[in-house]
Parts: sequence; structure tokens; C-alpha cells
Amino acid sequence: MLKGKQSWWFANRPVIIGASSVVGPEEGSGPLAESFDLVHPELDMQQKSWEKAERLLLEQASEFAVQKAGLSRQDVQFYVGGDLMNQIISSSFAARAIGAPYIGVFGACSTSMESLALACQLVDSGAAERVLAGTASHNCTAEKQFRYPTEYGSQKPPTAQFTVTGAGAALVAAQGNGPVVECATIGKVVDLGIKDPFNMGAAMAPAAVDTIQAHFNDTGRSPGDYDLIVTGDLAGVGHPIAKELLMKNGVPMDHTEFNDCGLLVYDVEKQKVQAGGSGCACSAVVTYGHLLKRLAKGELKRILVVATGALLSPISFQQGESIPGIAHAVAITAGNGEGGEA
Amino acid sequence: MLKGKQSWWFANRPVIIGASSVVGPEEGSGPLAESFDLVHPELDMQQKSWEKAERLLLEQASEFAVQKAGLSRQDVQFYVGGDLMNQIISSSFAARAIGAPYIGVFGACSTSMESLALACQLVDSGAAERVLAGTASHNCTAEKQFRYPTEYGSQKPPTAQFTVTGAGAALVAAQGNGPVVECATIGKVVDLGIKDPFNMGAAMAPAAVDTIQAHFNDTGRSPGDYDLIVTGDLAGVGHPIAKELLMKNGVPMDHTEFNDCGLLVYDVEKQKVQAGGSGCACSAVVTYGHLLKRLAKGELKRILVVATGALLSPISFQQGESIPGIAHAVAITAGNGEGGEA
Repeated sequence: MLKGKQSWWFANRPVIIGASSVVGPEEGSGPLAESFDLVHPELDMQQKSWEKAERLLLEQASEFAVQKAGLSRQDVQFYVGGDLMNQIISSSFAARAIGAPYIGVFGACSTSMESLALACQLVDSGAAERVLAGTASHNCTAEKQFRYPTEYGSQKPPTAQFTVTGAGAALVAAQGNGPVVECATIGKVVDLGIKDPFNMGAAMAPAAVDTIQAHFNDTGRSPGDYDLIVTGDLAGVGHPIAKELLMKNGVPMDHTEFNDCGLLVYDVEKQKVQAGGSGCACSAVVTYGHLLKRLAKGELKRILVVATGALLSPISFQQGESIPGIAHAVAITAGNGEGGEA
Repeated sequence: MLKGKQSWWFANRPVIIGASSVVGPEEGSGPLAESFDLVHPELDMQQKSWEKAERLLLEQASEFAVQKAGLSRQDVQFYVGGDLMNQIISSSFAARAIGAPYIGVFGACSTSMESLALACQLVDSGAAERVLAGTASHNCTAEKQFRYPTEYGSQKPPTAQFTVTGAGAALVAAQGNGPVVECATIGKVVDLGIKDPFNMGAAMAPAAVDTIQAHFNDTGRSPGDYDLIVTGDLAGVGHPIAKELLMKNGVPMDHTEFNDCGLLVYDVEKQKVQAGGSGCACSAVVTYGHLLKRLAKGELKRILVVATGALLSPISFQQGESIPGIAHAVAITAGNGEGGEA
């Protein structure tokens, strides 16, 4: 593995040999419905609590990802997982079910690509043969924990985002069939002082821009090297800010499709999701459900997924702190020798 | 790097070129007081909240670790950190101050060795030249978040543990002077059904045993290969359970010193700490403060630090869940070519 300043180049070309996404009813009514392996018709998923429902989503996505690779739990050498819950309990309980040695991570909604980047790093360096990366979020666990009791029915400003109910998991291996992960860029914490937890897109946009620019600096690539660059969950407010900042910084996105998972996962006009989607599962289900299928079909050859995270807690917000943002980027190609440089 | 089933062998012998520990008043009144770089005389550390005090501890330990290596923040290529706070805010705010690309992790009180193991893996595999690993906990933030308001003054059973106020950080590099990290074993989640959050030592003991046995299986080592095997924070209840389980499983600890950071950090007889210490900082300050100094003095040649974590949250406990345990082990030698096998 060659090292960039904050990027890892995966010279051994780790492969996503199985990936899965499981979602809730709102996501199953959105434009990407057909991309998901399982759509739960009810938010509670017949569980006794929202937290147990979130855990079920992650266990199902993990199980399906392994199954789709034609393997079983015992074949997973390490599990890298995280989520938005306090003490990442969804991931830890899922790790108990999976049974593999467990590396718990937290990057708020950037956890999807933080876990995928680490999984690929472990496989690429020879530290493991097969590593499962997974994450989950649930609209009602997030509402309850970060905002108000779900029964309260509080109103929100249009800058707010709607937490995706879902889970995504990817099994990364040294060899096999599937999309290839070429490189990853680990983000720095960027905090421009935004304190409004109902405008997290704006808080995270500068972090996305910082990581995208670092990625190009480290790898020598430019926007035109990707068919699609997709941010995690900047949504309707944050995504245009990111685009404008990139333009100002001399990185115009004219030579690639530049989009956002929080805008792709819902029909933002028709569904009641305020500015768009957010949550750990947002970039996970869009990437592992929708985007990998587009790569497999040949509609896309190479994509950069820039998962964004708002590293706040209710306590830090109540104590008047601003919202630190972060973003981690992972470059994925269609695999089978196409488009690779390593 | 050679791989074991759940262990990483660091063939390139990454070095801890700087390490630091900063603690609060109770730890500064304990038997290891002279090992720490800074003892705060007051719990609030002149901050406006316990959370801000915890963050200060981590920022100070990180700064000192880098300084002791004769370097500055700009020389840190990645920061791997985590803590017990919801959404690991102490680490995320510290990462903002440090400025390096940030990999947030969570393993409850096992975070100390989870972060050190990952830091060493990144350096050993060539993914980075210098990685800082850090963690922190504060007695009052933990009380407030996991138990009762600190003003409430609730009584506790003798099986409870006392969260260490402190932070520890280690800067790992490919080359330099200092103790060498030989290998690490990543733990699985082990849950034998204990549901009492005032008896976390018992909940974590089986995980410590599982990881210690996995370590010996993967590396071909036995207890006698270490001068000291130290668990993270099993304390007065959990540590004897771990010893008994190891005996039963045919891994007697007669050929090494077998101790626990939660028993070392306080005078358990004299200080009012119930069964002993706990918290992310427990194994961190004992390892980075006390044990690395004993290695440097030649009192110890090779140690195995088995940091233990209880992966519960207040919500999971309130919903009747048991407490999943985990433990991650890291083997450290005095360095300078002594005792190494790689």
C-alpha cells in the first residue's frame, strides 16, 4: 500500500464480494426502492423498541452481505461497525450475533465509509482475508435520542434532514468477484462554527470539500476521473454549499456527476423529508444498494463516495458547542480489471 | 504483517515514540501518582463542564505525547481516538484541536488498546508513518451519563467500579526510540448474560479470558512469555473471575504476574473506589504512565495489556439487555531489540 498524506492506495485491489442494504417504509417508497434487498413495511419491524428494530436492520444487512458472497458468518475474520446510537449499541449487539472479532468505530454519518475504508485497509495490507463493514440508523431512534420523543411530533425547519431507516453492509475480501476499492481518504475535523443541529448539511459541507480536495491532492486525480462523486448526506442545503465552495477553491464539478445520497434516497419534492436524507444508513444503503448495482450494470465505471458526519452530541449542542464535521472518501470501480490503475 | 486468526503480528516493529498520561485528583492520590505527567488538583480543571474537563485531559495527553517525541501536531498523520461519551465527543473535539485526519473508534473501556492496535496496524502496514492513539474518561461525565446526576450522591454496591479521571495518548511511529509493539489481538463480543451495570467486572471477565486464549492460540505464546499480563478494568470482582476461568480452561497464570489496571491505579483498600478503577482512561493511564516506565527501567521486558470493555448503554440496560463484553490485547516489549521475535 502506498501512502498519501491522508489517503491509502489499495495496491492489492480489495474486492466487495457481497453487499446488502435493508430499509424501512419511507425509503421503500422512494426512487431507489428496487435497489434494496429488503423493505420493511413497518417502522417497528415487529420489535419491541426502535433500538431493537435498528439492530435487526444491521443484523439482516450483515447476514445478507455474507450470504450473497456465498459464505457464512464463520468466514468473516473481522467486523468493523458503528452507528449513531449512544455507545454504538446497534453495532455491538450485531457484532455479538455475527461472532467475528469486532472493531467498533464512530464517525457519525461518515461511519459507512470509515468502516469500509478500514475494512479495505485491513484486507489490502494482509492483516485479514475477509472483513465485514456495516452501519445502520433508524429514523425513530435518532429522533428520540437527538431531538424529541417520537410521540411529541415536533415541527422542523426546512433545513432539517430526515434520518434514513436502514442498514448497509459490505464484505471485503482479498480476492473474488465484485467491485474493487481503489483508495480511500480519511478526513480531518472541519468546524466553521455552525451551531444549529437542524442545519447539519451546512455544518458538514466544508468537511466534504476538505476531504474531496485532499483526495485529489493525494491521488493526483481530478473530478473527471470519476463518473460520479456522491456526498453522504449534505442534502438540499449542504450540497449546493459544497458545490459552491469547490467552485471557489478551483475544483469545478463540471466534468463529473456530483450528487448526494441524501438527495438520491428520497423524492425530496414529494416525500416529507425536509431537505433530504441523513443518518449512518443514508450513504450506506445508497452505495451498497443503488450505486454498486449501477457499477455492476456498467452505467458507472468509477465512483467516489464521500460520506459526511456531524460529530455533535445533544450534550455538546446544549453546552453551546459548534458542530464539528468530517468526511471520509472511498473510490470504487466496477472491478474485473476495468478502470484500475494499481 | 503476518496474520493470525484474530491477531496481527507487527513484523516491522512499530515504536511508541511518545506517550503521556494526565489524571485527576483521585488518581493523583493513588499509588501510581508519580507515573503521570500531570495531576489536576481539581475535578473540574477550571472548565465550565465535566465534558469540557474530559476533553482538556485528552488534548493535554495528546499534546504531551507528541512533545515527548520531540515533534509537533503537524507531524501526526492520523489520530485514532475514542471515549465513553455519547458520540465520542471528547475525542472528536480533541481531533479538531490536533488537526490530523481522524479515525473515531469505540470499544468502551477497551478503546485504549483498540486505538493502539489500529495505530500500530496502520504504521506497520505502511499506511502511515506516525499515528496518535488516545482515549479519556472522567468520573463525573461517566456518572452523569451512565448513572445519576453527580449532585445526587447515590450509593453504590461494593461490586461497582470507580471511573478513572484521566487521559492517555501514545504516538506510534515506524522508527525511533521507545517500546516496541509486537502484536495485537482483536477481541470478539462475549456475553454470558450479566445484566447488572454495577458489576461490569464480572460482565467483562469472560471477554478478557476469550481474548487472552485467542492471543496464545494465534501467536503460539504462553503466559510465561510475558513478565506481566494486565487486564484493563476488571477490578476486585472481575479479575479473580478471569483468573479462575483461565485456570479452568487450562491456562494457569502461575508463570507470569497477572494483574489489573483497575487494581493498580488506586489503593483499593484506602481509597473509596468500591471494587477498583474503570473507564477508558484506566488502562490508558496505567499503561502509558506506569507500565511503559517500568519497561524503560528494565523492570519488565515484555507485557500484554488486555483492555476490557462493557458495551452497554443506559438504553440497552433499561430495555433489559445483557452487557456484551469485549477485550483487545496488545503486546509491548522494552524495545531496542530486546525480546523481539519478528
